[in-house]
Amino acid sequence: MTLHRYSIGVDLGGTNLRVAAYHQHSTDGGQLTEIVSLPTRVGDGPHTVADDMSAAIVGLLDKYGRNEKLAGVGLGTPGPLELPEGILRNPPNLPGFDRFNLKQAIEQRVGAPVVIESDANLAALAEFVLGSGKSYGVRSLCMLTLGTGVGNGIILDGKIWNGNNGMGGEAGHNTVDPDGEVCPCGSRGCLELYASATGVRRMAEQARALDQDDAEIEAESPMLTARHVADSALAGDSRALKVFDRVGTVLGIGLGALVNTLNLPLYVIGGGMSAAWELFAPRMMEELRMRSYVYRLTAPTEEESRARSPRKTHVVRAELGSDAGILGACLLPFMQS
Amino acid sequence: MTLHRYSIGVDLGGTNLRVAAYHQHSTDGGQLTEIVSLPTRVGDGPHTVADDMSAAIVGLLDKYGRNEKLAGVGLGTPGPLELPEGILRNPPNLPGFDRFNLKQAIEQRVGAPVVIESDANLAALAEFVLGSGKSYGVRSLCMLTLGTGVGNGIILDGKIWNGNNGMGGEAGHNTVDPDGEVCPCGSRGCLELYASATGVRRMAEQARALDQDDAEIEAESPMLTARHVADSALAGDSRALKVFDRVGTVLGIGLGALVNTLNLPLYVIGGGMSAAWELFAPRMMEELRMRSYVYRLTAPTEEESRARSPRKTHVVRAELGSDAGILGACLLPFMQS
Repeated sequence: MTLHRYSIGVDLGGTNLRVAAYHQHSTDGGQLTEIVSLPTRVGDGPHTVADDMSAAIVGLLDKYGRNEKLAGVGLGTPGPLELPEGILRNPPNLPGFDRFNLKQAIEQRVGAPVVIESDANLAALAEFVLGSGKSYGVRSLCMLTLGTGVGNGIILDGKIWNGNNGMGGEAGHNTVDPDGEVCPCGSRGCLELYASATGVRRMAEQARALDQDDAEIEAESPMLTARHVADSALAGDSRALKVFDRVGTVLGIGLGALVNTLNLPLYVIGGGMSAAWELFAPRMMEELRMRSYVYRLTAPTEEESRARSPRKTHVVRAELGSDAGILGACLLPFMQS
Repeated sequence: MTLHRYSIGVDLGGTNLRVAAYHQHSTDGGQLTEIVSLPTRVGDGPHTVADDMSAAIVGLLDKYGRNEKLAGVGLGTPGPLELPEGILRNPPNLPGFDRFNLKQAIEQRVGAPVVIESDANLAALAEFVLGSGKSYGVRSLCMLTLGTGVGNGIILDGKIWNGNNGMGGEAGHNTVDPDGEVCPCGSRGCLELYASATGVRRMAEQARALDQDDAEIEAESPMLTARHVADSALAGDSRALKVFDRVGTVLGIGLGALVNTLNLPLYVIGGGMSAAWELFAPRMMEELRMRSYVYRLTAPTEEESRARSPRKTHVVRAELGSDAGILGACLLPFMQS
């Protein structure tokens, strides 16, 4: 009798904490069978968050562990993250967590092996195993997750590229405008400042493109505001269209460097902001074509694009939605074995 | 009786063609035992160049092949190069060579297996096996070769990163100034436009920093002019100093993106322009520190720098000189076996 294999995945966000059980059918197929969602009690410190997380994990382990074989616990966290140690390094979305060893804290509490990764790397892993990576049959890809920030994950030859310290794939902070806006990261003109929902909101405010007063904007989340700007753009508002034009331009510049440097077969744009694909993608592709001769030499024709030709460079919208991060966390334990 | 192992390496440049024999003592030791240098007869077309190259290779094969075991022939060429096919793709320094299959042409003429790579990748390989990569004991590095252009080669986990089409490692054409000068590659503001000898020459002309008339500059090679500008800078000329300040700034921006994206333990600056290291490196390191929080989180202290700490990000001057390219060509056949 063979036991079914399952894993537990955790998606630790600055606001919500989600813990899921995932059942694998095949190496590239499976499903989330249960998701537990909790608030992240950041203000109460990392140990409280670790307690909450562990209680939810243990609940799922108790439920499924009797009849099924655990592949492991995968944990996604906002970066930067130092690997293989599993130590958080001053994560902007988790104040008070600097130098906290999350991997160790959870392993001690749940008594099971924990594998940890940055959330953007896990979104890329999920997209690689279950999304566009599977559709295109590639061994490598680079993903940009456009959310409140711009996350980045790179898969090379079937594995997450962690680099020397676990900090590979932070292209959201590559410079796209050397004299641009100041970034909380300490630099200026980072991709994230323009290609994120936060960036769209700021640029819209700067352009006063919205038909509502500033106080109202201030009270809303960046993602909601980005949606308003997208609606205005779709309705033909020229200032809102200009904002997404800027999003496309900086993405083209950023992708150009990634294509020149890595020459991968697949670049994937995901995250909540990718819903505005039609508004920024044409400008993005035009800018990419100008910025990267490697792209021009390897760009697919329309037919090669449809045929997903393996020797061409494809730039596509992510296939997985907002569950990419937690799916990646669930897949992670299976990648180790 | 064991035969000594040797290889033949070719460095195909736009002006000169060099063919060398290399004898290996150990996996990371050996020496160039003979170098044949010829003019590259670019104007007579690719078949003439292939004939010249093959005659020199056959000469060395005849000389060493009797008593020694050939590991193979390694061939370095200006890019872009399509791999694994070995087809040149519109190389700016080899007009008339577009779509020429150089690997096949040489294999047919010399009757031995030929491995082909872009010259910047081979400089990185040599630096990895015999230079700073060996000194630092790393498995991965990224090298920028500052010559008349800016070449780039990336070694990941002990192997040249070719990417999907053999065009990985073209970071010399990453954008460092989106609205900058127009580049022959079709983009604007590429790193190569500022961090190369050609860039230094152009910037110096623009600043009229040299105490000689324009006609004289025009007649000189970029590398020679870059040396004049460096001499002026060393003598305290403020306009020449400003040129190297710009070189340092754009290198910091370019390296910042490479560090954020790849998080490698070692970044190497080589090529003729690296002789001006003291003139651009302080500004480069300052800019890199500002541009990349991954660098700031992993930057070595002075002591860690001296100790070459493996978990830190080191940025160093290349250890090998102008023979890096041909040494890399000679090493290439040994990497395949």
